[in-house]
Amino acid sequence: MEAMMVDRLKRVRLALEAAGANTLLETHPANIYYLSGFTGDSGMLLVEPSSVTLFTDGRFTIQAREEAAGVRTHIHRGGPLVASIGAYMRRKSRLRAAISPSRLSLADWTVLKKGGGKGVRWVAVDGLVDRLRAVKDRSEIDRIRDAARIGSEVMEETIRLVRPGVSELDLAAEIGYRMRRKGASGESFEAIVAAGPRSALPHARPTARQIGRNELVVLDLGAILRRYCSDLTRTVYVGRAPLRVRRWYRAVLEAQTAARDAVRAGVTTGAVDAAARGILQRKGLGRYFVHSTGHGIGLEIHEDPRLARGQKVLLETGNVITLEPGVYIEGVGGIRIEDDAVVTPRGAEILTTAPRELLEI
Amino acid sequence: MEAMMVDRLKRVRLALEAAGANTLLETHPANIYYLSGFTGDSGMLLVEPSSVTLFTDGRFTIQAREEAAGVRTHIHRGGPLVASIGAYMRRKSRLRAAISPSRLSLADWTVLKKGGGKGVRWVAVDGLVDRLRAVKDRSEIDRIRDAARIGSEVMEETIRLVRPGVSELDLAAEIGYRMRRKGASGESFEAIVAAGPRSALPHARPTARQIGRNELVVLDLGAILRRYCSDLTRTVYVGRAPLRVRRWYRAVLEAQTAARDAVRAGVTTGAVDAAARGILQRKGLGRYFVHSTGHGIGLEIHEDPRLARGQKVLLETGNVITLEPGVYIEGVGGIRIEDDAVVTPRGAEILTTAPRELLEI
Repeated sequence: MEAMMVDRLKRVRLALEAAGANTLLETHPANIYYLSGFTGDSGMLLVEPSSVTLFTDGRFTIQAREEAAGVRTHIHRGGPLVASIGAYMRRKSRLRAAISPSRLSLADWTVLKKGGGKGVRWVAVDGLVDRLRAVKDRSEIDRIRDAARIGSEVMEETIRLVRPGVSELDLAAEIGYRMRRKGASGESFEAIVAAGPRSALPHARPTARQIGRNELVVLDLGAILRRYCSDLTRTVYVGRAPLRVRRWYRAVLEAQTAARDAVRAGVTTGAVDAAARGILQRKGLGRYFVHSTGHGIGLEIHEDPRLARGQKVLLETGNVITLEPGVYIEGVGGIRIEDDAVVTPRGAEILTTAPRELLEI
Repeated sequence: MEAMMVDRLKRVRLALEAAGANTLLETHPANIYYLSGFTGDSGMLLVEPSSVTLFTDGRFTIQAREEAAGVRTHIHRGGPLVASIGAYMRRKSRLRAAISPSRLSLADWTVLKKGGGKGVRWVAVDGLVDRLRAVKDRSEIDRIRDAARIGSEVMEETIRLVRPGVSELDLAAEIGYRMRRKGASGESFEAIVAAGPRSALPHARPTARQIGRNELVVLDLGAILRRYCSDLTRTVYVGRAPLRVRRWYRAVLEAQTAARDAVRAGVTTGAVDAAARGILQRKGLGRYFVHSTGHGIGLEIHEDPRLARGQKVLLETGNVITLEPGVYIEGVGGIRIEDDAVVTPRGAEILTTAPRELLEI
């Protein structure tokens, strides 16, 4: 087992102890990868005081052996995976097993509880491994930095392809292709290319709709490189932007700058959200900012920490987050500017590089 | 509300009644889309005897109005969505609410149960809407047929690009790009391009590894068109295949043909699996066939019915399924042949068209 994994498991066991548990049943794929290296899409990991066991099925026998070195593998045959895990746990004594109630289905819980029997004490803890994952080490930050570079390059290239008559789907196809040609293993999420009134939908999926003149176009994309995600958004205007669009754009840009300036280890995530939201509120645009200011990125495209209204969680050195205020005006369009940043003791180190000024095409 | 949606809701209410419930809390995105048209990635749907309510958050206000016509929308602010739903349900009387234990987290269940109060009777039913979705109507089959056509075309084009020195990722990039250029909104799943020993991993992700001479290459891809998925696999050999590879290939092809021939409305899914598995077992390859013979496709890439060992579920006219036996030999490689088929009273109508014979490149 790699030294990095050994260190992660050590930190997990300390966190378990603090939560009153001595064993972790991990059900979330990103956390399973983080603690074992296993990337299969069916499996659960049991971290005990002196062993780690991966429960998976026959499709992943070879893969588990190759990826999860130092981890024992239990190949499950038929029925729910938790039935095997429950039976395994029943044979142990003095288990105080942590489970994540938000990542265990009611069905699995029912089988697991019955299978484990009366000898297991269950401890409900959400986000134990997620909180560890929120602080990235140097090698993780390097991966995100590389993914951000690919994302930034593809953003600049794609913006040059925006013109009337090109469809949202055409641009989405270019985004996915160019990212992979630059070495990305895939996209962090299905790229958003939303033109005209559709840009007012924060989570629009690309359609065959052609870009017209005098429209906003929102492009939101991210690359996965060596399993780590990037995420950035730019908004351009096709034509000469009318005054109100310029005003909205300036407000979003100012809000994003305020969020950047607020980032620093020791500041609450809520304070960063408030910095961006305050600007938009003062410009009378508060009600058009319908989501939070940002989120962590890493093995997942949305992870800890969340930068939302009122959050008391403190930013830590090594967090990697997005900063993405936006405004969405129904029937007209939306504007969002999003960058990725590493949290340092002195401020935000921005990883994404495409220009932020309003581009009129 | 569209007539189609009205009809689906009617069938849901009949299924609810049969399960002893009068209300459905639907938590699964594909089912929510099926019953309401809403495609946002955060929401839950409450189907009551004479109304349908979508619970979602502020990011999806506009989208919910546009997509889910005839459905009331409840915009939730802060905290878990189920807290709003519980509070809503508490104000009702005589609710017998069906939930799906496999698609409700233990955390959500705890909040929901408390919020709903003692007046709600909970009925645990898994797969109620999934079973309805397993039988496709003509318009759904047409969409899958179109998605299968795109998948087949891209498969044939991509096979022509296979040669030594091209990387798995290069081919994956071409697959995604070509599908979107043909009108697909995306890929049903991240395409598998696995060469050499990596082809022995049924769920390999593409890597920068270059294709070499005298290797098997497995290509598994699918397109999404108007939200419906296709899924097909072909295996080619780079060079002149040695005798044992030809023998394995012939066995898999024969197994797939046997599965095709076994498909017909009224046959059990287990019988189709047994038809394919029996061939491989008789050739001494049974232990290398480490997964099931197929699965339903539709709004999701894996859905009902499952064609696995011992399954007693009967195939019905309108099921759309994959048929995909394979063998995986560690250290050497894998072979899988997969097509999509509509179940009819007389047999399988195959939707995918790329040639099935062993191609030596």
